[in-house]
Amino acid sequence: MISVVIIGNGNVATHLVDAFLEVDTVHATQINSRKLENIPEADVTIIAVSDDVISEVSAKIKNSLVVHTSGSFFMENLKNTARKGVFYMLQTFSKNKEVDFSKVPFCLEAENEQDFQLLEKLANSIGNKIYAINSEQRKALHVAAVFVNNFTNHIYKIGNDICEEHNVPFEILQPLIKETAAKIETLSPRKAQTGPAIRNDKKTIKNHLDLLNREQQKIYKMVTKSIQNGN
Amino acid sequence: MISVVIIGNGNVATHLVDAFLEVDTVHATQINSRKLENIPEADVTIIAVSDDVISEVSAKIKNSLVVHTSGSFFMENLKNTARKGVFYMLQTFSKNKEVDFSKVPFCLEAENEQDFQLLEKLANSIGNKIYAINSEQRKALHVAAVFVNNFTNHIYKIGNDICEEHNVPFEILQPLIKETAAKIETLSPRKAQTGPAIRNDKKTIKNHLDLLNREQQKIYKMVTKSIQNGN
Repeated sequence: MISVVIIGNGNVATHLVDAFLEVDTVHATQINSRKLENIPEADVTIIAVSDDVISEVSAKIKNSLVVHTSGSFFMENLKNTARKGVFYMLQTFSKNKEVDFSKVPFCLEAENEQDFQLLEKLANSIGNKIYAINSEQRKALHVAAVFVNNFTNHIYKIGNDICEEHNVPFEILQPLIKETAAKIETLSPRKAQTGPAIRNDKKTIKNHLDLLNREQQKIYKMVTKSIQNGN
Repeated sequence: MISVVIIGNGNVATHLVDAFLEVDTVHATQINSRKLENIPEADVTIIAVSDDVISEVSAKIKNSLVVHTSGSFFMENLKNTARKGVFYMLQTFSKNKEVDFSKVPFCLEAENEQDFQLLEKLANSIGNKIYAINSEQRKALHVAAVFVNNFTNHIYKIGNDICEEHNVPFEILQPLIKETAAKIETLSPRKAQTGPAIRNDKKTIKNHLDLLNREQQKIYKMVTKSIQNGN
Protein backbone atom coordinates (compact mmCIF):
# COMPACT_ATOMS: atom_id res chain seq x y z
CA MET A 1 0.00 0.00 0.00
CA ILE A 2 1.35 3.45 -0.96
CA SER A 3 0.04 6.34 1.13
CA VAL A 4 -0.41 9.60 -0.76
CA VAL A 5 -1.32 13.11 0.32
CA ILE A 6 -2.51 15.39 -2.48
CA ILE A 7 -2.40 19.11 -1.78
CA GLY A 8 -4.69 21.33 -3.83
CA ASN A 9 -8.27 21.38 -5.02
CA GLY A 10 -7.95 22.24 -8.70
CA ASN A 11 -8.66 19.94 -11.63
CA VAL A 12 -5.40 17.98 -11.43
CA ALA A 13 -5.70 17.32 -7.68
CA THR A 14 -9.34 16.31 -7.91
CA HIS A 15 -8.97 13.97 -10.90
CA LEU A 16 -5.90 12.39 -9.32
CA VAL A 17 -7.63 11.72 -6.00
CA ASP A 18 -10.64 10.28 -7.83
CA ALA A 19 -8.38 7.91 -9.76
CA PHE A 20 -6.44 6.78 -6.68
CA LEU A 21 -9.68 6.13 -4.80
CA GLU A 22 -10.48 3.43 -7.38
CA VAL A 23 -7.22 1.62 -6.67
CA ASP A 24 -6.60 -0.94 -3.91
CA THR A 25 -2.88 -0.36 -3.66
CA VAL A 26 -3.03 3.37 -2.91
CA HIS A 27 -4.44 5.25 0.06
CA ALA A 28 -5.01 8.88 -0.91
CA THR A 29 -5.96 11.93 1.16
CA GLN A 30 -6.74 15.37 -0.32
CA ILE A 31 -5.76 18.52 1.58
CA ASN A 32 -6.67 22.13 0.86
CA SER A 33 -3.53 24.20 0.23
CA ARG A 34 -4.75 26.84 2.68
CA LYS A 35 -4.99 24.31 5.52
CA LEU A 36 -1.48 22.96 5.80
CA GLU A 37 -1.25 22.89 9.60
CA ASN A 38 -1.95 19.16 9.90
CA ILE A 39 -0.60 17.25 6.94
CA PRO A 40 -0.78 13.49 7.57
CA GLU A 41 2.38 11.46 7.09
CA ALA A 42 2.57 9.77 3.68
CA ASP A 43 4.97 7.93 1.38
CA VAL A 44 4.40 10.53 -1.32
CA THR A 45 3.11 14.09 -0.91
CA ILE A 46 1.88 15.54 -4.22
CA ILE A 47 1.66 19.32 -4.52
CA ALA A 48 -0.96 20.05 -7.20
CA VAL A 49 -1.28 23.82 -6.94
CA SER A 50 -0.57 26.69 -9.34
CA ASP A 51 3.11 27.35 -10.14
CA ASP A 52 3.37 30.58 -8.15
CA VAL A 53 2.56 28.94 -4.80
CA ILE A 54 4.46 25.63 -5.17
CA SER A 55 7.51 27.13 -3.49
CA GLU A 56 5.55 28.48 -0.51
CA VAL A 57 3.52 25.28 -0.06
CA SER A 58 6.55 23.00 -0.34
CA ALA A 59 8.37 24.93 2.42
CA LYS A 60 5.67 23.88 4.89
CA ILE A 61 5.83 20.11 4.28
CA LYS A 62 7.80 17.89 6.62
CA ASN A 63 6.98 14.58 4.87
CA SER A 64 9.79 12.59 3.30
CA LEU A 65 9.11 12.58 -0.46
CA VAL A 66 7.50 15.71 -1.88
CA VAL A 67 6.67 16.03 -5.57
CA HIS A 68 4.86 18.63 -7.67
CA THR A 69 2.74 18.26 -10.83
CA SER A 70 3.92 21.28 -12.81
CA GLY A 71 5.33 21.29 -16.34
CA SER A 72 7.57 24.28 -15.81
CA PHE A 73 8.76 24.22 -12.19
CA PHE A 74 12.24 22.80 -11.61
CA MET A 75 12.52 19.95 -9.09
CA GLU A 76 15.34 21.59 -7.16
CA ASN A 77 13.19 24.67 -6.54
CA LEU A 78 10.97 22.71 -4.16
CA LYS A 79 11.61 24.14 -0.67
CA ASN A 80 10.98 21.06 1.48
CA THR A 81 14.02 19.81 3.35
CA ALA A 82 13.64 16.08 2.58
CA ARG A 83 13.54 14.30 -0.83
CA LYS A 84 12.14 15.90 -3.96
CA GLY A 85 10.51 14.73 -7.15
CA VAL A 86 8.11 15.52 -9.99
CA PHE A 87 4.85 13.82 -10.97
CA TYR A 88 3.86 15.68 -14.16
CA MET A 89 0.93 14.50 -16.24
CA LEU A 90 0.93 15.96 -19.74
CA GLN A 91 -2.73 16.35 -20.63
CA THR A 92 -5.44 19.00 -20.46
CA PHE A 93 -7.74 18.42 -17.51
CA SER A 94 -11.23 19.85 -17.68
CA LYS A 95 -13.47 20.17 -14.66
CA ASN A 96 -16.46 18.17 -15.80
CA LYS A 97 -14.79 15.71 -18.13
CA GLU A 98 -13.64 12.34 -16.85
CA VAL A 99 -9.94 11.62 -17.39
CA ASP A 100 -8.80 8.35 -18.95
CA PHE A 101 -5.47 7.97 -17.14
CA SER A 102 -4.50 5.02 -19.34
CA LYS A 103 -3.92 7.61 -22.07
CA VAL A 104 -2.12 10.18 -19.93
CA PRO A 105 1.71 10.34 -20.16
CA PHE A 106 3.31 10.49 -16.71
CA CYS A 107 6.62 12.38 -16.76
CA LEU A 108 8.48 11.44 -13.58
CA GLU A 109 11.63 12.76 -11.94
CA ALA A 110 13.29 11.93 -8.61
CA GLU A 111 16.63 12.47 -6.88
CA ASN A 112 17.39 8.77 -6.59
CA GLU A 113 16.43 5.48 -8.20
CA GLN A 114 14.41 4.25 -5.22
CA ASP A 115 12.18 7.33 -5.22
CA PHE A 116 11.78 7.09 -8.97
CA GLN A 117 10.60 3.51 -8.63
CA LEU A 118 8.09 4.55 -5.97
CA LEU A 119 6.69 7.26 -8.27
CA GLU A 120 6.66 4.77 -11.13
CA LYS A 121 4.67 2.29 -9.04
CA LEU A 122 2.24 5.05 -8.10
CA ALA A 123 1.78 6.15 -11.73
CA ASN A 124 1.39 2.52 -12.84
CA SER A 125 -1.47 2.07 -10.39
CA ILE A 126 -3.65 4.36 -12.52
CA GLY A 127 -1.83 4.63 -15.87
CA ASN A 128 0.68 2.95 -18.14
CA LYS A 129 2.55 5.60 -20.14
CA ILE A 130 5.53 6.34 -17.90
CA TYR A 131 8.53 8.48 -18.89
CA ALA A 132 11.68 9.54 -17.03
CA ILE A 133 11.93 13.25 -17.81
CA ASN A 134 14.33 15.62 -16.07
CA SER A 135 13.55 19.28 -15.36
CA GLU A 136 15.33 20.59 -18.47
CA GLN A 137 13.48 18.13 -20.71
CA ARG A 138 10.20 18.89 -18.99
CA LYS A 139 10.67 22.59 -19.67
CA ALA A 140 11.12 21.87 -23.39
CA LEU A 141 8.10 19.56 -23.32
CA HIS A 142 6.03 22.31 -21.74
CA VAL A 143 6.98 24.77 -24.48
CA ALA A 144 6.22 22.17 -27.16
CA ALA A 145 2.87 21.57 -25.45
CA VAL A 146 2.06 25.29 -25.71
CA PHE A 147 2.60 25.00 -29.47
CA VAL A 148 0.56 21.83 -30.08
CA ASN A 149 -2.20 22.77 -27.62
CA ASN A 150 -2.60 26.56 -27.20
CA PHE A 151 -1.27 27.61 -30.61
CA THR A 152 -3.05 24.83 -32.50
CA ASN A 153 -6.26 25.80 -30.72
CA HIS A 154 -5.71 29.40 -31.85
CA ILE A 155 -5.29 28.22 -35.44
CA TYR A 156 -8.62 26.38 -35.02
CA LYS A 157 -10.10 29.66 -33.77
CA ILE A 158 -8.95 31.51 -36.88
CA GLY A 159 -10.45 28.70 -39.01
CA ASN A 160 -13.67 29.11 -37.06
CA ASP A 161 -13.63 32.90 -37.56
CA ILE A 162 -13.15 32.51 -41.33
CA CYS A 163 -16.10 30.11 -41.45
CA GLU A 164 -18.32 32.44 -39.44
CA GLU A 165 -17.36 35.47 -41.56
CA HIS A 166 -18.34 33.56 -44.72
CA ASN A 167 -21.38 31.80 -43.40
CA VAL A 168 -20.02 28.25 -43.49
CA PRO A 169 -20.62 25.72 -40.68
CA PHE A 170 -17.31 25.12 -38.84
CA GLU A 171 -18.33 21.50 -38.23
CA ILE A 172 -17.44 20.73 -41.87
CA LEU A 173 -13.79 21.07 -40.79
CA GLN A 174 -14.03 18.68 -37.84
CA PRO A 175 -13.14 15.46 -39.71
CA LEU A 176 -10.14 17.19 -41.29
CA ILE A 177 -9.00 18.46 -37.87
CA LYS A 178 -9.20 14.95 -36.42
CA GLU A 179 -7.45 13.39 -39.40
CA THR A 180 -4.65 15.99 -39.21
CA ALA A 181 -4.07 15.04 -35.57
CA ALA A 182 -4.28 11.31 -36.32
CA LYS A 183 -1.97 11.43 -39.35
CA ILE A 184 1.15 12.31 -37.36
CA GLU A 185 0.85 9.13 -35.30
CA THR A 186 2.22 7.24 -38.28
CA LEU A 187 3.94 9.99 -40.27
CA SER A 188 6.30 12.74 -39.04
CA PRO A 189 4.77 16.24 -39.28
CA ARG A 190 7.47 17.15 -41.79
CA LYS A 191 6.41 14.32 -44.10
CA ALA A 192 2.70 14.89 -43.48
CA GLN A 193 2.81 18.46 -44.81
CA THR A 194 0.72 19.28 -47.92
CA GLY A 195 -0.96 22.39 -49.34
CA PRO A 196 -0.12 25.59 -51.20
CA ALA A 197 2.76 26.70 -48.92
CA ILE A 198 4.91 23.59 -49.32
CA ARG A 199 4.04 23.41 -53.06
CA ASN A 200 4.86 27.13 -53.35
CA ASP A 201 1.58 27.60 -55.23
CA LYS A 202 1.76 31.40 -55.49
CA LYS A 203 -1.58 31.80 -57.24
CA THR A 204 -3.55 29.96 -54.53
CA ILE A 205 -1.63 31.77 -51.78
CA LYS A 206 -2.54 35.12 -53.32
CA ASN A 207 -6.20 34.10 -53.61
CA HIS A 208 -6.22 33.08 -49.96
CA LEU A 209 -4.63 36.32 -48.77
CA ASP A 210 -7.29 38.30 -50.67
CA LEU A 211 -9.98 36.65 -48.58
CA LEU A 212 -8.38 37.30 -45.16
CA ASN A 213 -8.37 40.31 -42.86
CA ARG A 214 -5.10 41.98 -41.96
CA GLU A 215 -4.44 40.02 -38.76
CA GLN A 216 -5.22 36.72 -40.45
CA GLN A 217 -2.94 37.70 -43.35
CA LYS A 218 -0.03 38.28 -40.94
CA ILE A 219 -0.36 34.77 -39.52
CA TYR A 220 -0.91 33.25 -42.98
CA LYS A 221 2.22 34.92 -44.39
CA MET A 222 4.45 34.08 -41.45
CA VAL A 223 3.44 30.42 -41.22
CA THR A 224 3.62 30.01 -45.01
CA LYS A 225 7.15 31.44 -44.99
CA SER A 226 8.11 29.22 -42.06
CA ILE A 227 6.79 26.12 -43.89
CA GLN A 228 8.71 27.10 -47.03
CA ASN A 229 11.94 27.73 -45.09
CA GLY A 230 11.60 24.36 -43.39
CA ASN A 231 11.75 26.05 -39.96
CA MET B 1 -28.81 3.50 -61.27
CA ILE B 2 -26.62 6.61 -61.61
CA SER B 3 -23.88 6.36 -64.23
CA VAL B 4 -20.68 8.20 -63.36
CA VAL B 5 -17.47 8.88 -65.24
CA ILE B 6 -14.51 9.90 -63.11
CA ILE B 7 -11.65 11.64 -64.88
CA GLY B 8 -8.25 11.50 -63.23
CA ASN B 9 -6.02 8.97 -61.52
CA GLY B 10 -4.89 10.77 -58.39
CA ASN B 11 -5.90 9.92 -54.81
CA VAL B 12 -9.34 11.53 -54.99
CA ALA B 13 -10.32 9.83 -58.26
CA THR B 14 -9.07 6.42 -57.14
CA HIS B 15 -10.69 6.47 -53.68
CA LEU B 16 -13.95 7.69 -55.22
CA VAL B 17 -14.07 4.94 -57.86
CA ASP B 18 -13.25 2.32 -55.21
CA ALA B 19 -16.14 3.57 -53.07
CA PHE B 20 -18.65 3.64 -55.95
CA LEU B 21 -17.67 0.12 -56.99
CA GLU B 22 -19.01 -1.09 -53.64
CA VAL B 23 -22.41 0.43 -54.30
CA ASP B 24 -25.28 -1.16 -56.25
CA THR B 25 -26.94 2.09 -57.27
CA VAL B 26 -23.95 3.61 -59.05
CA HIS B 27 -22.11 2.50 -62.16
CA ALA B 28 -18.66 4.16 -62.23
CA THR B 29 -15.97 4.27 -64.93
CA GLN B 30 -12.51 5.81 -64.43
CA ILE B 31 -10.79 7.61 -67.31
CA ASN B 32 -7.23 8.89 -67.56
CA SER B 33 -7.22 12.67 -68.10
CA ARG B 34 -4.79 12.29 -70.98
CA LYS B 35 -7.15 9.97 -72.86
CA LEU B 36 -10.26 12.06 -73.30
CA GLU B 37 -11.06 11.05 -76.89
CA ASN B 38 -13.75 8.54 -75.96
CA ILE B 39 -15.58 9.57 -72.84
CA PRO B 40 -18.64 7.36 -72.28
CA GLU B 41 -21.98 9.04 -71.74
CA ALA B 42 -22.90 9.38 -68.05
CA ASP B 43 -25.38 11.08 -65.75
CA VAL B 44 -22.53 12.75 -63.89
CA THR B 45 -18.97 13.34 -65.10
CA ILE B 46 -16.58 14.06 -62.24
CA ILE B 47 -13.32 15.86 -63.02
CA ALA B 48 -10.84 14.90 -60.29
CA VAL B 49 -7.62 16.45 -61.61
CA SER B 50 -5.31 19.18 -60.30
CA ASP B 51 -6.70 22.73 -60.36
CA ASP B 52 -4.54 23.99 -63.20
CA VAL B 53 -5.95 21.52 -65.74
CA ILE B 54 -9.65 21.50 -64.73
CA SER B 55 -10.43 24.21 -67.25
CA GLU B 56 -8.71 22.42 -70.12
CA VAL B 57 -10.23 19.03 -69.29
CA SER B 58 -13.74 20.43 -68.83
CA ALA B 59 -13.63 22.05 -72.28
CA LYS B 60 -13.37 18.60 -73.86
CA ILE B 61 -16.43 17.03 -72.21
CA LYS B 62 -19.71 16.81 -74.07
CA ASN B 63 -21.68 15.00 -71.33
CA SER B 64 -24.61 16.76 -69.70
CA LEU B 65 -23.64 17.35 -66.05
CA VAL B 66 -19.96 18.01 -65.38
CA VAL B 67 -18.64 18.61 -61.86
CA HIS B 68 -15.17 19.06 -60.36
CA THR B 69 -13.78 18.09 -56.93
CA SER B 70 -11.67 21.16 -56.16
CA GLY B 71 -11.88 23.38 -53.09
CA SER B 72 -10.80 26.54 -54.82
CA PHE B 73 -12.10 26.37 -58.40
CA PHE B 74 -15.28 28.33 -59.10
CA MET B 75 -18.16 26.37 -60.66
CA GLU B 76 -18.72 28.90 -63.43
CA ASN B 77 -15.11 28.51 -64.58
CA LEU B 78 -15.85 25.02 -65.87
CA LYS B 79 -15.61 25.21 -69.68
CA ASN B 80 -18.09 22.52 -70.69
CA THR B 81 -21.11 23.81 -72.56
CA ALA B 82 -23.81 21.86 -70.68
CA ARG B 83 -24.65 21.91 -66.94
CA LYS B 84 -22.06 22.51 -64.23
CA GLY B 85 -21.59 21.56 -60.60
CA VAL B 86 -19.14 20.85 -57.77
CA PHE B 87 -18.56 17.64 -55.84
CA TYR B 88 -15.97 18.71 -53.23
CA MET B 89 -14.97 16.37 -50.43
CA LEU B 90 -13.23 18.15 -47.59
CA GLN B 91 -10.71 15.64 -46.27
CA THR B 92 -7.05 14.71 -46.77
CA PHE B 93 -6.74 11.66 -49.01
CA SER B 94 -3.58 9.59 -48.68
CA LYS B 95 -2.56 7.03 -51.26
CA ASN B 96 -2.33 3.94 -49.08
CA LYS B 97 -4.89 4.78 -46.44
CA GLU B 98 -8.48 3.64 -46.83
CA VAL B 99 -11.05 6.44 -46.73
CA ASP B 100 -14.09 6.20 -44.47
CA PHE B 101 -16.56 8.17 -46.62
CA SER B 102 -19.15 8.13 -43.83
CA LYS B 103 -16.93 10.74 -42.11
CA VAL B 104 -16.19 12.83 -45.19
CA PRO B 105 -18.15 16.08 -45.65
CA PHE B 106 -19.50 16.44 -49.20
CA CYS B 107 -19.78 20.09 -50.26
CA LEU B 108 -22.09 20.19 -53.26
CA GLU B 109 -23.06 22.91 -55.71
CA ALA B 110 -25.19 22.86 -58.86
CA GLU B 111 -26.90 25.31 -61.21
CA ASN B 112 -30.38 23.99 -60.50
CA GLU B 113 -32.26 22.05 -57.85
CA GLN B 114 -32.62 18.89 -59.95
CA ASP B 115 -28.87 18.61 -60.51
CA PHE B 116 -28.22 19.30 -56.85
CA GLN B 117 -30.54 16.44 -55.92
CA LEU B 118 -28.72 14.13 -58.31
CA LEU B 119 -25.35 15.01 -56.74
CA GLU B 120 -26.89 14.62 -53.30
CA LYS B 121 -28.14 11.14 -54.21
CA LEU B 122 -24.69 10.25 -55.52
CA ALA B 123 -22.96 11.52 -52.35
CA ASN B 124 -25.51 9.73 -50.18
CA SER B 125 -24.68 6.45 -51.88
CA ILE B 126 -21.25 6.44 -50.20
CA GLY B 127 -21.51 9.06 -47.41
CA ASN B 128 -23.94 10.96 -45.20
CA LYS B 129 -22.51 14.40 -44.41
CA ILE B 130 -23.92 16.52 -47.20
CA TYR B 131 -23.70 20.34 -47.39
CA ALA B 132 -24.89 22.86 -49.96
CA ILE B 133 -21.88 25.14 -50.38
CA ASN B 134 -21.58 27.76 -53.11
CA SER B 135 -18.28 28.75 -54.74
CA GLU B 136 -17.70 31.77 -52.47
CA GLN B 137 -18.32 29.70 -49.34
CA ARG B 138 -16.14 26.89 -50.67
CA LYS B 139 -13.27 29.32 -51.21
CA ALA B 140 -13.50 30.44 -47.56
CA LEU B 141 -13.72 26.82 -46.46
CA HIS B 142 -10.58 26.02 -48.42
CA VAL B 143 -8.65 28.84 -46.75
CA ALA B 144 -9.92 27.73 -43.32
CA ALA B 145 -8.82 24.19 -44.21
CA VAL B 146 -5.30 25.45 -44.94
CA PHE B 147 -5.23 26.86 -41.40
CA VAL B 148 -6.58 23.82 -39.56
CA ASN B 149 -4.67 21.30 -41.69
CA ASN B 150 -1.43 22.73 -43.15
CA PHE B 151 -0.76 25.36 -40.49
CA THR B 152 -1.72 23.10 -37.58
CA ASN B 153 0.56 20.44 -39.03
CA HIS B 154 3.37 23.01 -39.14
CA ILE B 155 2.75 23.83 -35.48
CA TYR B 156 3.05 20.09 -34.77
CA LYS B 157 6.33 20.13 -36.69
CA ILE B 158 7.71 22.92 -34.49
CA GLY B 159 6.61 20.95 -31.40
CA ASN B 160 8.41 17.94 -32.85
CA ASP B 161 11.56 20.01 -33.51
CA ILE B 162 11.59 21.34 -29.92
CA CYS B 163 11.30 17.77 -28.61
CA GLU B 164 14.11 16.52 -30.86
CA GLU B 165 16.36 19.44 -29.93
CA HIS B 166 15.89 18.63 -26.24
CA ASN B 167 15.93 14.88 -26.45
CA VAL B 168 12.29 14.26 -25.51
CA PRO B 169 10.11 11.67 -27.31
CA PHE B 170 7.48 13.52 -29.41
CA GLU B 171 5.00 10.69 -28.73
CA ILE B 172 4.48 12.14 -25.23
CA LEU B 173 2.56 14.96 -26.93
CA GLN B 174 0.26 12.68 -28.95
CA PRO B 175 -2.56 12.36 -26.38
CA LEU B 176 -2.57 16.15 -25.89
CA ILE B 177 -2.73 16.68 -29.66
CA LYS B 178 -5.71 14.33 -29.95
CA GLU B 179 -7.48 15.89 -26.97
CA THR B 180 -6.93 19.40 -28.38
CA ALA B 181 -8.64 18.31 -31.61
CA ALA B 182 -11.44 16.51 -29.76
CA LYS B 183 -12.13 19.34 -27.31
CA ILE B 184 -13.48 21.73 -29.95
CA GLU B 185 -16.23 19.29 -30.89
CA THR B 186 -18.06 20.35 -27.74
CA LEU B 187 -16.45 23.72 -26.98
CA SER B 188 -15.74 26.64 -29.34
CA PRO B 189 -11.99 27.20 -29.91
CA ARG B 190 -12.34 30.61 -28.25
CA LYS B 191 -13.67 29.04 -25.06
CA ALA B 192 -11.25 26.11 -25.22
CA GLN B 193 -8.18 28.37 -25.06
CA THR B 194 -5.85 28.00 -22.05
CA GLY B 195 -2.15 28.63 -21.36
CA PRO B 196 0.30 31.46 -20.71
CA ALA B 197 -0.77 33.67 -23.65
CA ILE B 198 -4.45 33.98 -22.70
CA ARG B 199 -3.49 34.31 -18.99
CA ASN B 200 -0.88 36.91 -19.97
CA ASP B 201 1.64 35.02 -17.80
CA LYS B 202 4.68 37.14 -18.71
CA LYS B 203 7.15 35.15 -16.63
CA THR B 204 6.31 31.83 -18.32
CA ILE B 205 6.27 33.47 -21.77
CA LYS B 206 9.76 34.87 -21.16
CA ASN B 207 11.01 31.45 -19.99
CA HIS B 208 9.59 29.84 -23.12
CA LEU B 209 11.16 32.39 -25.45
CA ASP B 210 14.57 31.79 -23.82
CA LEU B 211 14.38 28.13 -24.86
CA LEU B 212 13.46 28.74 -28.53
CA ASN B 213 15.54 29.57 -31.60
CA ARG B 214 14.92 32.79 -33.47
CA GLU B 215 12.43 31.40 -36.02
CA GLN B 216 10.46 29.61 -33.30
CA GLN B 217 10.46 32.83 -31.24
CA LYS B 218 8.93 34.77 -34.14
CA ILE B 219 6.02 32.34 -34.39
CA TYR B 220 5.65 32.16 -30.59
CA LYS B 221 5.49 35.96 -30.26
CA MET B 222 3.09 36.47 -33.14
CA VAL B 223 0.63 33.76 -32.10
CA THR B 224 0.82 34.84 -28.44
CA LYS B 225 0.01 38.41 -29.47
CA SER B 226 -2.81 37.22 -31.71
CA ILE B 227 -4.29 35.15 -28.86
CA GLN B 228 -4.07 38.14 -26.52
CA ASN B 229 -5.67 40.51 -29.04
CA GLY B 230 -8.50 38.05 -29.59
CA ASN B 231 -7.75 38.00 -33.33
